[in-house]
Amino acid sequence: MPGGLLAIGGKVSSDGAVLRHFYNNSGGAEGNILILPTASTRIEPGEEVIAALASLGLRRRVEVLTIFKREQAMDPDLARRVRQASGIFLLGGNQMRLTATLGGTLLQQELLAAHQAGLTVAGTSAGATALSKLMIAYGRNGAIPRRGSANIIPGLGFTDGVIFDQHFRQRHRFGRLIYAVACNPGYLGIGIDEDTAAWVVDGCLEVVGRSAVTIVDGEEIEDTNVAEVSPQQVVAVSGIRLHLLNHGCKFDLRTRRATLAIEKIESRE
Amino acid sequence: MPGGLLAIGGKVSSDGAVLRHFYNNSGGAEGNILILPTASTRIEPGEEVIAALASLGLRRRVEVLTIFKREQAMDPDLARRVRQASGIFLLGGNQMRLTATLGGTLLQQELLAAHQAGLTVAGTSAGATALSKLMIAYGRNGAIPRRGSANIIPGLGFTDGVIFDQHFRQRHRFGRLIYAVACNPGYLGIGIDEDTAAWVVDGCLEVVGRSAVTIVDGEEIEDTNVAEVSPQQVVAVSGIRLHLLNHGCKFDLRTRRATLAIEKIESRE
Repeated sequence: MPGGLLAIGGKVSSDGAVLRHFYNNSGGAEGNILILPTASTRIEPGEEVIAALASLGLRRRVEVLTIFKREQAMDPDLARRVRQASGIFLLGGNQMRLTATLGGTLLQQELLAAHQAGLTVAGTSAGATALSKLMIAYGRNGAIPRRGSANIIPGLGFTDGVIFDQHFRQRHRFGRLIYAVACNPGYLGIGIDEDTAAWVVDGCLEVVGRSAVTIVDGEEIEDTNVAEVSPQQVVAVSGIRLHLLNHGCKFDLRTRRATLAIEKIESRE
Repeated sequence: MPGGLLAIGGKVSSDGAVLRHFYNNSGGAEGNILILPTASTRIEPGEEVIAALASLGLRRRVEVLTIFKREQAMDPDLARRVRQASGIFLLGGNQMRLTATLGGTLLQQELLAAHQAGLTVAGTSAGATALSKLMIAYGRNGAIPRRGSANIIPGLGFTDGVIFDQHFRQRHRFGRLIYAVACNPGYLGIGIDEDTAAWVVDGCLEVVGRSAVTIVDGEEIEDTNVAEVSPQQVVAVSGIRLHLLNHGCKFDLRTRRATLAIEKIESRE
């Protein structure tokens, strides 16, 4: 059975629900955890994650896969390390570095196969964006969709049918996610706030963390002028279905129906 | 077994090899052909295709699916018409109209299912671009890749792992296809010239028509600065594999190896 995906909206706190969720779903104290710093080009941000996992009780040493060039991602020894892992954590940075470095490599193939066999895959910020088959490479922030406000490219492909966006509320990315969905209403837009995550397993999404996950469902869009307006012009869209979900809420990705949570989590803001 | 896909680079001649290939692979004289004018918003360009098919020997009436709004693409009666068809031809125009109108609709589902069951799907220009799971919505022409020179969005999804571009040589689209591949070298770029087509069936591509199909394979890309440069700046890429194929040449999409043709076709230019 495929493992779970944890798409984190960035700025994950070291003592919050998100990292605890990753720890609990990656083998707990006996977890064999990898960190992938490719998006970041630095390994330092991984040290906070390692410290947080240790304070949660992780006994084993976390391994950092220092892959920054395509050639390194072709190393046959990676296959063994990926197959032995119970969880991998993709650091943030630039999501295009992830795809330009890993796309079509052995490491990507091994990660996809290991995920199909049960590996938990988490990514924060750029690492979350790149989890899906389609990702926003970069774009223009703001509440209003404009033509071209999201630049979409192929992601790493752990899941499909969804487009993740991160730092969602904090960087005002509602417009670009609406634009992405208007371009092809068959896709679900999933906007994830900071220190919050979408946990996707077995066709169901669950919200974990401090703030909210925004789901943009275009299936009932009646009309849009996205094909007609000029670049950077405002795009009109009618009939978007929207779901704002907080900690504990669930969303069935097949039926596109939400189940709201009764439990509450304290908000910092 | 899935049907074939015929991705045509636009400006298809009414008496050339491309339409003959479509006719031969869509049931011939007894073919049950649909035309989808959604990208064009007009049905007139379909009349030329209908006349050409008639002169090739088609006996049955061609049906034009006049779907221009999402609501129309939800009509349950479309299922019957699509299931009875042996071939469908997507006209050119604007590929974003295709995805924004059909994405997530009943018609898209029925077309994908029928293609899996054997339906031949042809598209010219915008219709070709939209055949894959990822498509270039619009972009900037020119020989040099620049960051953002291709704006990619989700396509209709009859195939995956490739990005089609059309009017390829005529509109100087080499740069934008290189850019698209540099973003994620796991994808193959396929640039199709006018009055030329890529016939994709059973994991193999065959070139049909007057000019060439250009294949951009990024699997051996050694390095690229696509993640680092500013928007519109030139993107450097090293290690691209390139294949320029003309009529009769084949390309195995799994092994990424070409087989050149001995037969020749007269070039108009």
